[in-house]
Amino acid sequence: MVHEVVIFDSTLRDGAQTRGVSFSVDDKIKIVKALDVLGIQYIEAGNPGSNIKDIEFFKRAKKLELKHAKLTAFGSTRRKDITVEEDKNVQSLLSANTSAVAIFGKSWDFHVTDIIRTTLEENLNMIRDTIRFFKEKQKEVIFDAEHFFDGYKANPLYAMETLRVAAEAGADCLVLCDTNGGSFPDEVYEVTKKVVETFSTDVGIHCHNDCGMAVANTMMAVKAGAVHVQGTYIGLGERCGNANLSTLIPNLQIKKNIRCIPEEQLSQLTATARYIAEVTNISLDAASPYVGNNAFAHKGGMHVDGVNKASRSFEHIPPHLVGNSRKILMSEVSGKNTLLSKIQKIEPKLTKESPQTQEILDKLKLLEHKGYQFEGAESSFELLIRKHLGKYQPFFELNYYKVIEEGPTVNGEYSSSALIKVRVNDKEEMTATEGKGPVHALDLALRKALEVFYPILKTVYLTDYKVRVLDAKSTTAAKVRVLIESTDGKESWTTVGVSTNIIEASAIALVDSIEYKLIKELEKNEKGGAYHGNDNDTKNTSGACRVG
Amino acid sequence: MVHEVVIFDSTLRDGAQTRGVSFSVDDKIKIVKALDVLGIQYIEAGNPGSNIKDIEFFKRAKKLELKHAKLTAFGSTRRKDITVEEDKNVQSLLSANTSAVAIFGKSWDFHVTDIIRTTLEENLNMIRDTIRFFKEKQKEVIFDAEHFFDGYKANPLYAMETLRVAAEAGADCLVLCDTNGGSFPDEVYEVTKKVVETFSTDVGIHCHNDCGMAVANTMMAVKAGAVHVQGTYIGLGERCGNANLSTLIPNLQIKKNIRCIPEEQLSQLTATARYIAEVTNISLDAASPYVGNNAFAHKGGMHVDGVNKASRSFEHIPPHLVGNSRKILMSEVSGKNTLLSKIQKIEPKLTKESPQTQEILDKLKLLEHKGYQFEGAESSFELLIRKHLGKYQPFFELNYYKVIEEGPTVNGEYSSSALIKVRVNDKEEMTATEGKGPVHALDLALRKALEVFYPILKTVYLTDYKVRVLDAKSTTAAKVRVLIESTDGKESWTTVGVSTNIIEASAIALVDSIEYKLIKELEKNEKGGAYHGNDNDTKNTSGACRVG
Repeated sequence: MVHEVVIFDSTLRDGAQTRGVSFSVDDKIKIVKALDVLGIQYIEAGNPGSNIKDIEFFKRAKKLELKHAKLTAFGSTRRKDITVEEDKNVQSLLSANTSAVAIFGKSWDFHVTDIIRTTLEENLNMIRDTIRFFKEKQKEVIFDAEHFFDGYKANPLYAMETLRVAAEAGADCLVLCDTNGGSFPDEVYEVTKKVVETFSTDVGIHCHNDCGMAVANTMMAVKAGAVHVQGTYIGLGERCGNANLSTLIPNLQIKKNIRCIPEEQLSQLTATARYIAEVTNISLDAASPYVGNNAFAHKGGMHVDGVNKASRSFEHIPPHLVGNSRKILMSEVSGKNTLLSKIQKIEPKLTKESPQTQEILDKLKLLEHKGYQFEGAESSFELLIRKHLGKYQPFFELNYYKVIEEGPTVNGEYSSSALIKVRVNDKEEMTATEGKGPVHALDLALRKALEVFYPILKTVYLTDYKVRVLDAKSTTAAKVRVLIESTDGKESWTTVGVSTNIIEASAIALVDSIEYKLIKELEKNEKGGAYHGNDNDTKNTSGACRVG
Repeated sequence: MVHEVVIFDSTLRDGAQTRGVSFSVDDKIKIVKALDVLGIQYIEAGNPGSNIKDIEFFKRAKKLELKHAKLTAFGSTRRKDITVEEDKNVQSLLSANTSAVAIFGKSWDFHVTDIIRTTLEENLNMIRDTIRFFKEKQKEVIFDAEHFFDGYKANPLYAMETLRVAAEAGADCLVLCDTNGGSFPDEVYEVTKKVVETFSTDVGIHCHNDCGMAVANTMMAVKAGAVHVQGTYIGLGERCGNANLSTLIPNLQIKKNIRCIPEEQLSQLTATARYIAEVTNISLDAASPYVGNNAFAHKGGMHVDGVNKASRSFEHIPPHLVGNSRKILMSEVSGKNTLLSKIQKIEPKLTKESPQTQEILDKLKLLEHKGYQFEGAESSFELLIRKHLGKYQPFFELNYYKVIEEGPTVNGEYSSSALIKVRVNDKEEMTATEGKGPVHALDLALRKALEVFYPILKTVYLTDYKVRVLDAKSTTAAKVRVLIESTDGKESWTTVGVSTNIIEASAIALVDSIEYKLIKELEKNEKGGAYHGNDNDTKNTSGACRVG
């Protein structure tokens, strides 16, 4: 049994082939950074030959200073009957300018003869030429033996021959791919073992989940001696997805004592999964092993009783190891420690036993039940704590708004306009604007009215706006959660709003964003003086600034 | 290797312990019927001891005439230090009046001493007494050895002793449970094999998915000789869920030739999964092996090219075997071949070389550049092709809408209302509605106006509504893409709209959805007659039905 494996993440390549998933260049940069921080060693970030956007990505990615990860570009062996120099895709791959490349080639004879339609001999030449070409350019070459297990079943001699050619051409790793996801753990173990015994080159594994076996097959390949593990962090990928690394890493490292990432990063597994799902704009499956919202949720009465007596009675690992937490669905014992660290940032005197701590926890649970989620919106959560503790300064009141959408008018145009009334102390300001849509109009109107009183708000602008439909089954009457990221050019902060009405949800998040900026400004000016020390001033007016 | 296993579904018992899932008695009856039709042999339908609703259920279920399934009630061994006659839960279980009962007992010594806190000897008595009691009542008794694999690792002699006592007391099946889901396929295989070799009683397997291993562990237990397979049909269950039967059944029956259900029912696997998800009111994971919406969806250009040449090149089984279908996704990475197969469904005469094919491809690229994405919205894409080819019937014109958002009013309320004017031939209909948000109001108003002309639209309702912010950097002025899934109870279809204005994007998708339904209805009525043959009728008016 090996003691260490390298992890190769393909969220941005195989994961991008998931139905409904489409990454912008910005999304890709964010995901690369998150995987790097986690300690993933290889990030397969695109296929420059098939996707023009990826060329721009690799240009921008050059400037990233990565701590752990090697960026890897992905492409095929050269096409049949031409040279590598003539092959446009090979040249695009080279132009991505990464230190490592992943080259896929056919190892199933049927694919050679019936899909790419060439001779078995020419396919070996394609593998040999392409790997040699990249080795001459000093690249690290990872060879993905596509359909290896199906190929081995059909024609073991030829499948092994493709690996031999790749190894002799200088490949640094031979990756056995279960491309169609049709293999089972016992087969994968046997075949991988044979390959490991035959070649001195490192062996890797790449599994798909069409039989629900991607993670199990990978575990068995590692048992057989594979030292390079491919997958996607939250299991995205063509059809049923790739091996899920957020399951595999703790399976290997916590359960089997095989090192994958720096030990101190294990507690970031859950947060990273949620972050990547957020950037991808999908819901992370609540039942996901280790990192899902329900992974340590106990509902059955006996289970609740059991974990209260001894956590291992109904939990295969302690949830905090992977940064997740236990959820006792019928009672209120979870989460206080996490919460306390946030509360103590605002009021260091409070402890776990303070009644305010319990009250805030209750409020948090109530809001989560309504669809709020503060993991990506710490600033809204800080405001919630401040409001509860009276450490809060009301800066304005949003008295009234009206948003009008009209289309098509007599001359075929559409219009969005917003009218707004705010009050600061005893002064009212009423204004109106047009926008490119209802939320944009409201956003502009709110800023326009408030800048009269707080010119500092002119430095603030929004950098991200996300909408998530909760409970899509209620369709157009469903609740939506809006996340808004704002910046003043130095710091950035995120706020959240939830409502069945997208305009109202956006208004809540916009108001939070402005309030947060004004509080920080005030604190900077008062430098921890009177404001922090004097609760009475603020308690009286607490809650005055709200939508409605 | 065995040739046949019995399938035991616990959706209504272990599945009911899923966070957020709550079955009504009606839901349970519906699911029992669906599983029975599919040919499942045992349905564990409740725990009468812990859930009063379940007693009502078993009363009503008595009247069901089931073709394949035995209803099974679930309960624990008697509690410590009392007789079975004194144990309320045992008596409730008996009163469920099922021919089979599943009794769970402890097989991990730590659980005996630390959780239920009794002696190892008394635990054996509890198992023995309870099984004997039900055998004397002529019940078939399935013994669930809770935590068997953890127990075997901790104290193999005691774990085996619990099975021996159960077998001697007359249990008909010894089910090895990986209750905490922490075991791996190789361990499960070894341990199950020892049990199968030791006892002549049938052996079963019950796995949880906390390491992503539930299905793999079950496969390996069957390989080791288990003949009774427990799981839940779509993988519901405590924490990360139970072994997913909609994956296991085709894995066993199609891939391994081990019979689970009547052969002719295999093609109902997908429909049954969708139905159970619908009754449970959850979204079936699109990536679910075999039965998910994406299980046979192809996006990467090479994969699309491959399946067009030979389906087995990128599909481990033909999708129709399980009642699913292939989806070729439209995207910037798929080429003319993919497009052509869609075009030929509307106009079989067109080829790759037809100028219209290139025109539609150009249009597709232009729209994708604007933020459209048709891979999840095949119906909007079909409309686009029809409009371009003149195979299109304009049913209505959306002349005008106005949406008004107001809040907070003098009495602190928010309101969303929509006013709409449509024209059908020379008749106008103007109406207005209130909704829970601007999109909901518009959706209701549009249907209300059109149902006057097309009563068939009363059967249509939305089942999913998604919003994706494109280029979030433009924040509240960013483009949004709206996806709407609609159904008439038989078929479902998805449409898309893009705009900087979320109301307009939603309106585009709503109009497409209604048009699509009306076109399908017309085609059904005309059965490929005049409409298909006569382009001139439709060409004149093509494009008249649009937003604006």
